[in-house]
Amino acid sequence: MNQLRKDYLLNRWVIIAKKRGKRPHDFFQISRTKRMNGVCSFCPGNEHMTPPEIDRVEEAGEWIIRCFPNKFPATVREKGLSKRNLLTKMSAYGIHEIIVETPEHDVELGDLSFEHIRKILDMYIKRLIEIKKDRKIKYVSIFKNKGEIAGASIEHSHTQIIAIPIIPPIIRAELNAIKRYKRGKNRCILCDIWKMEMKSRRKIFEDKYIAVFAPYASISPFEVWIMPKNHVPSLERLSSKEKDSFAKTLKIILNVLNKTLNYPPYNFYFHLSPDKEDMHLHLELLPRLSKWGGFELSNNIIINTMSPEMAAKHYRDEI
Amino acid sequence: MNQLRKDYLLNRWVIIAKKRGKRPHDFFQISRTKRMNGVCSFCPGNEHMTPPEIDRVEEAGEWIIRCFPNKFPATVREKGLSKRNLLTKMSAYGIHEIIVETPEHDVELGDLSFEHIRKILDMYIKRLIEIKKDRKIKYVSIFKNKGEIAGASIEHSHTQIIAIPIIPPIIRAELNAIKRYKRGKNRCILCDIWKMEMKSRRKIFEDKYIAVFAPYASISPFEVWIMPKNHVPSLERLSSKEKDSFAKTLKIILNVLNKTLNYPPYNFYFHLSPDKEDMHLHLELLPRLSKWGGFELSNNIIINTMSPEMAAKHYRDEI
Repeated sequence: MNQLRKDYLLNRWVIIAKKRGKRPHDFFQISRTKRMNGVCSFCPGNEHMTPPEIDRVEEAGEWIIRCFPNKFPATVREKGLSKRNLLTKMSAYGIHEIIVETPEHDVELGDLSFEHIRKILDMYIKRLIEIKKDRKIKYVSIFKNKGEIAGASIEHSHTQIIAIPIIPPIIRAELNAIKRYKRGKNRCILCDIWKMEMKSRRKIFEDKYIAVFAPYASISPFEVWIMPKNHVPSLERLSSKEKDSFAKTLKIILNVLNKTLNYPPYNFYFHLSPDKEDMHLHLELLPRLSKWGGFELSNNIIINTMSPEMAAKHYRDEI
Repeated sequence: MNQLRKDYLLNRWVIIAKKRGKRPHDFFQISRTKRMNGVCSFCPGNEHMTPPEIDRVEEAGEWIIRCFPNKFPATVREKGLSKRNLLTKMSAYGIHEIIVETPEHDVELGDLSFEHIRKILDMYIKRLIEIKKDRKIKYVSIFKNKGEIAGASIEHSHTQIIAIPIIPPIIRAELNAIKRYKRGKNRCILCDIWKMEMKSRRKIFEDKYIAVFAPYASISPFEVWIMPKNHVPSLERLSSKEKDSFAKTLKIILNVLNKTLNYPPYNFYFHLSPDKEDMHLHLELLPRLSKWGGFELSNNIIINTMSPEMAAKHYRDEI
């Protein structure tokens, strides 16, 4: 029997369509994305092709991680705000940055060493702290698009940061759900969720600091959430050991995806607390292995052909 | 300056990224989808490959439109419901049907005659009325996926109907927005919207019965809304003349898309009233010409590189 499942926090439903169900190997990608033609502006030697550098991490005198503004930003630091009648608008004030994760064009994030991934995480945190100093910024979205299907227009491995002057609808909805639960039970719902999931068939992995699971109402095959066990609201509040665990875990998960699904397209993003709000930091990672059509767009009900229980078993078997 | 725009009804924002902006011809598809290999179960002669037929429209003794259950349904008429702790679930009770729009494998909906499209609309309505008799059904989603990118797994032109036991989150949010506005102004917000848009640069087309426009916070390049001018809550309440206008308008819009963008992938879907609720029927049509990445999935804020004002001008110039 197919199931309708509601997200832990959001008014978002998923149909787990077992009857249309697929086995893990059905999702194996036929081929890795072909190398795009032409010059890559993210490669060493082409630094002049990007906007002026903001920050870098070096090793033996060469950069290994590099941060600069997006050449075609979605948000920029310009003013202006208005609202009238039925039309609500404001200027897309903000910051849009790129973090190139490695000088090597063909290397996927999961193929980098643990130490290197740890340094990328440190760069996220450094940029987050810096960007938050702008009081007009209400939220900082840190996300990765891997592969054309997942929205990447440049294949060289990179992360994006978009800072915006509003709290995004999904983050607002999660904050509200956290508040409601807290009022009723005086506990964090996300603390309760990871504890529950570490006893469920959706558990993938845990260590002293981090819980990893396939979420109950997964919106994509092989969706994974990575969450600190401590109630940490945002990235810059992670301890050094928590950061180590986070980087190790991300590498473990990406290794399984890359090995068993042949470098599939994916997105990940952090959900973290805006100022003065209570969030429990987590990373959501979504392989892009299914296509959303009219039903999903019309309704915000997603059809997922793989249960999170099956996805979690796949990860557990391969770790 | 890029703009952040809020949807008329939903807490969904769009960044109209003019700085990343593209011109209409930038979206011209390189090639129509290639014909898939193998036998098509939607073609005449292969009727035995589909589940038993529910309904058909004939012309000269041959079917021209055909309706049958989806072979791999997302929802089925089986019982069961439960909810516990942090996990909300229910059985995916419902109905999932396919309407094959034409016997011809290579013909796109927009290439059919007006009279034929009108008969397809009649079939939607006939199925809607029949399906609504099941009192456990709370919403009937009628939608079309054209092209693989838009979620179609079969290329032969068809529409899908999925009936579900809940009111979908997006529909619920629209119903709530309609109620709020009605309490304040004693008018329908969607009536006010089409009247406003018929005076705006987002107007595409109108006749006595139908208003057509590119919505203010378009989530995709060339998004179009088609709306009856009268406050009609659902498809089965359209008058004969309104249905004529609807079918003609749909053909006009699809003709522009197919001619100027070379048969792009698209979705459309109706938003219509659940029983005892007040909706203003409309069709939303979304060409699938951009890819959503981590930012969109994380936040429900969509980056659209074409303003609806430019899209509307393109339609007006080509009609």
